[in-house]
Amino acid sequence: MQELVTDGWKPDSSLALPLHIQISNYIQAKIRSGAWPAGMRLAAQRDLARQLGVNRSTLVSALGQLTALGLIEGRRGGGTRVALSNDAHSNRAGNWNDYVEEGIHYPNLPTIQAINRLEFTKGLIRLGTGELSPELLPNETMKSILADLSRQSLPLSYEEPLGSLQLRTAISKELSNIGIHAAPSSILILSGALQGLQLIGQGLLPRGSTLLLEKPSYLYSIHSFQSVGVKLYGLPMDSEGLMTQGIEAEVHRTKASLLYTIPTYHNPTGILMTEERRHLLMNTTRALGLPILEDGAYQDLWLDNPPPPSLKAMDREGRVLHLGTLSKTVSPGLRIGWAVGPEPVIRRLADIKMQSDYGSSSLSQLLAAKWLEEGYHARHCEVLRMELRRRRDAVLDMLSTHFGHLASWNRPTGGFYIWLSLNKPLPLTKLFKAALEVGLLLNTGDLYNRSDARHLRLSYAYASLTELEIGIKRLAELVSSF
Amino acid sequence: MQELVTDGWKPDSSLALPLHIQISNYIQAKIRSGAWPAGMRLAAQRDLARQLGVNRSTLVSALGQLTALGLIEGRRGGGTRVALSNDAHSNRAGNWNDYVEEGIHYPNLPTIQAINRLEFTKGLIRLGTGELSPELLPNETMKSILADLSRQSLPLSYEEPLGSLQLRTAISKELSNIGIHAAPSSILILSGALQGLQLIGQGLLPRGSTLLLEKPSYLYSIHSFQSVGVKLYGLPMDSEGLMTQGIEAEVHRTKASLLYTIPTYHNPTGILMTEERRHLLMNTTRALGLPILEDGAYQDLWLDNPPPPSLKAMDREGRVLHLGTLSKTVSPGLRIGWAVGPEPVIRRLADIKMQSDYGSSSLSQLLAAKWLEEGYHARHCEVLRMELRRRRDAVLDMLSTHFGHLASWNRPTGGFYIWLSLNKPLPLTKLFKAALEVGLLLNTGDLYNRSDARHLRLSYAYASLTELEIGIKRLAELVSSF
Ligand SMILES: Cc1ncc(COP(=O)(O)O)c(C=O)c1O
Ligand SMILES: Cc1ncc(COP(=O)(O)O)c(C=O)c1O
Repeated sequence: MQELVTDGWKPDSSLALPLHIQISNYIQAKIRSGAWPAGMRLAAQRDLARQLGVNRSTLVSALGQLTALGLIEGRRGGGTRVALSNDAHSNRAGNWNDYVEEGIHYPNLPTIQAINRLEFTKGLIRLGTGELSPELLPNETMKSILADLSRQSLPLSYEEPLGSLQLRTAISKELSNIGIHAAPSSILILSGALQGLQLIGQGLLPRGSTLLLEKPSYLYSIHSFQSVGVKLYGLPMDSEGLMTQGIEAEVHRTKASLLYTIPTYHNPTGILMTEERRHLLMNTTRALGLPILEDGAYQDLWLDNPPPPSLKAMDREGRVLHLGTLSKTVSPGLRIGWAVGPEPVIRRLADIKMQSDYGSSSLSQLLAAKWLEEGYHARHCEVLRMELRRRRDAVLDMLSTHFGHLASWNRPTGGFYIWLSLNKPLPLTKLFKAALEVGLLLNTGDLYNRSDARHLRLSYAYASLTELEIGIKRLAELVSSF
Repeated sequence: MQELVTDGWKPDSSLALPLHIQISNYIQAKIRSGAWPAGMRLAAQRDLARQLGVNRSTLVSALGQLTALGLIEGRRGGGTRVALSNDAHSNRAGNWNDYVEEGIHYPNLPTIQAINRLEFTKGLIRLGTGELSPELLPNETMKSILADLSRQSLPLSYEEPLGSLQLRTAISKELSNIGIHAAPSSILILSGALQGLQLIGQGLLPRGSTLLLEKPSYLYSIHSFQSVGVKLYGLPMDSEGLMTQGIEAEVHRTKASLLYTIPTYHNPTGILMTEERRHLLMNTTRALGLPILEDGAYQDLWLDNPPPPSLKAMDREGRVLHLGTLSKTVSPGLRIGWAVGPEPVIRRLADIKMQSDYGSSSLSQLLAAKWLEEGYHARHCEVLRMELRRRRDAVLDMLSTHFGHLASWNRPTGGFYIWLSLNKPLPLTKLFKAALEVGLLLNTGDLYNRSDARHLRLSYAYASLTELEIGIKRLAELVSSF
């Protein structure tokens, strides 16, 4: 939270006004307008100087002026903050700033916050990013769908609680191709699968309940459940997926009320749960009366063979709630996902969604409906699989060349990820920072399992093959040097 | 939650299969697929028969068959539910259904849930709906913007945490026209202003804190704050807006940490806070160090004269957090709103937004940016004002004709609403139901103030003038008969 966002503003050395005065004026305006409120901490001088593109000494003289004006002051414990009592805020005005560490929702993990920002920094090679490279997104097709839409009447009003019926009908049809038979009334449109996790956390689970999940898991990197007081209990995986042996004991011990799983091309490990394991999981949990939340974010992205039936396709009791999304195959920016489940549950989630955002973008919903209805999805996925296969194979080759003596890894049969297992544990936060210094953005294993110290999530979906080649080589050098 | 959603399915009397068997088969499929899980309550027979378009006796014989099959059973206390132990769910499978009444987030008020659903029922006259009539939405312009977009490269990837810089820049410029000077780094893009309320509830206020607000207020009709344990304390209004006298005592008594206000064309009363009252409010709260959440949802919708400066425009301390939206002027379906405030607060909210839905639809954001950048907004608002003025005046005439002896009301100078004050208190829930029977959908005063029994929120923005004429006449008859 203490990072300064300078909006990309930098002092202009072609002006007559000295740089330190330009900086001082800029910061004064921020403070006098209230954009930087009393008590706000400023970033460290080193970071500030870098962001403004000036020498440390220039910055120091700007800060000196601001201190003399009484606008900023030294903090106990080091650093600088906007003065609590200054010209601009001469009275004892409380301000929102006091509240930024309040609120029941946890902040993102510091590394995740950094990643979220740094992903928009040019020049970094993103070795672990969980999205398709822009060149793999169907830009041309989307443009032609937009052109079609521009000739019809648009849905500009609020949508109904479950979301556009046209889109739900299209999803219902799409799902029936993979053995999930769900009427539109069993489907809720979401602004991405993430929103589903958030709504389920808020709407279905009592405070203090326990959720079982794979360890590592994507779910550890977000706070949808922890922020509402739900405890996570991780179960081990093997190459066939979540291991079911421990489930019964854990259900009895923790009174777990739910099991979350990513059976198909798991994030972060890339593991595909085998058909046998799926049956075992369904049987074990049926006997225990344990509902399942199945996250199918990557299920369309098989590379070698189609995956076994989804858990939802095996469910006859309404015990599985299933999440899907267009983010990983088509466009994360559309923000279109869905939940499929028993109608009373879908209606409860729809009600909370109405309270959260009154539904998803009607334009995104219409575009998504056309995308599915007109068969673009199936054709696109075919091309995509070919591209991802090529990328996967190339990255596996790069790893053999550069990481043979440093790590081991799996050969994913779908999705985006290779789970790199380092031969020896490393301080991952340090590695993350050191990598950043040499232009690499990493997704370290501790994001997906707090105590992990020897994994990296690599993605062959985002960076170009040239970048991946440079990045993996550079990463191997860095890892060797640790 | 117990309402049956039949997806519009009805038995087909042209088929050879008797209606009751068609119904029984339909319900069997729902139960055997798990869409209607064990324990789910069915709607009352009367409602069910109406939804299916059959006689009560036909329904009864269908339900009889299902009972004989062991698929449904009578509930203690009346009604019917899916059998807890039946062929389909023969084991002791727990299911999600057990959870629909768990979760920390409150359900919507029953009347709001009903309204949310009924708004998509054809044929009802919606007398209180808080959105523009589809004919007032800029469909043609939006189509031509889409056509333009179909010729450029689209933003299909995840957006940065604060939202699209292009849109934030356009909003920053737009806001400067009304005296709010905010850099793009002080602006967060939201999926509608409602999402802002939700994020603020989750991210800025500690459990158990108190929020002051106008009574009545839109905020009473949603649960963004109550669901996270924040208490609401309502302050009275007069024709000049929120009355400031009580604030100091309430802040001392309740340790209130925030004041929420809709100063400009208040929902539901339509009241415009005068400039003098705004100064008074800013001064009173400054002395108390009380931050303000200003909801500017309707501020572009002045009809006679532009409103006084917004509270945010008067703020130099970063004490006001301001919400805006395109929903009330342009398109609710776009789901584009914004929060403007001190940068640390905006960043905290952005972080929670990233955890909620990874940002708003990139397509909606791009469309909104073009809409603002290219000056469509200002031109559209001008036309809109003319239309709304015409509608307001017509509805005021209708009220004089039909309600002169039954109620009093204000003459709104902007926004959508007329706050109808009935001469005598009425049981509003009963009135709501009775109105529905005669084809009218009402927004009753108790939605905005639990203890209210004599107000209705009328909107001149949604229904056509013909519908309004019929509806207001019918409503007057109904009210007289109570
Ligand atoms: C397993 C899994 N589920 C859900 C999501 C959320 O994706 P979205 O909200 O974009 O659909 C992701 C994205 O990283 C994911 O990896
Ligand atoms: C006062 C007020 N604020 C916020 C909203 C939320 O609107 P949206 O989320 O569509 O921007 C509304 C809508 O009814 C409103 O009346």
